[in-house]
Amino acid sequence: CYINNCPVGGKRSIMDMEIRQCIPCGPGNRGHCFGASICCGEGFGCYIGTSETLRCQKEDYLLSPCEPSGRACGSNGGKCASSGICCTQESCVLDPICDTRSVFSSD
Amino acid sequence: CYINNCPVGGKRSIMDMEIRQCIPCGPGNRGHCFGASICCGEGFGCYIGTSETLRCQKEDYLLSPCEPSGRACGSNGGKCASSGICCTQESCVLDPICDTRSVFSSD
Repeated sequence: CYINNCPVGGKRSIMDMEIRQCIPCGPGNRGHCFGASICCGEGFGCYIGTSETLRCQKEDYLLSPCEPSGRACGSNGGKCASSGICCTQESCVLDPICDTRSVFSSD
Repeated sequence: CYINNCPVGGKRSIMDMEIRQCIPCGPGNRGHCFGASICCGEGFGCYIGTSETLRCQKEDYLLSPCEPSGRACGSNGGKCASSGICCTQESCVLDPICDTRSVFSSD
């Protein structure tokens, strides 16, 4: 389940487990679900409410909590989801903080 | 050009023209660009920073201003971009206001 939506039992047991990434999705399953309608991958960008995100609904039925990994961004607990894109469970915003180049540049 | 980014000359002349939708994009070109990296369509959801959005960069080179049509949503001048999705030039957020069903339901 997406960590913010897990049923109480699941949430209580979070302390006991290692948080995994949410289920794989997108071209070649090379991305990960960020929410029930959001799929992003480093190499391909983000899909919202498209056919690529359909499998992200399955995460709601898994008992163990999941959370995207990656650099924190935005003001609502977002994570960098792809080059230049910051996503939460419900939104994606263009964000230079997530620009791949900014990781290497000295600006 | 995207209406918020048009060069001054373009912006000044807005009053004189009918604002068009931004250039078509996505599967079968059935969607429209919302920003240089965002493509959405009623039937297919939204793409952010994917291969489907590459052609949306071309809009920056057109002189006449464009603006997505549709129902207003969100707090930043967004428009409903697909079923349940509200987008601006730089972001897309899941938003029940844009739910197709809510147009017809009596809730």
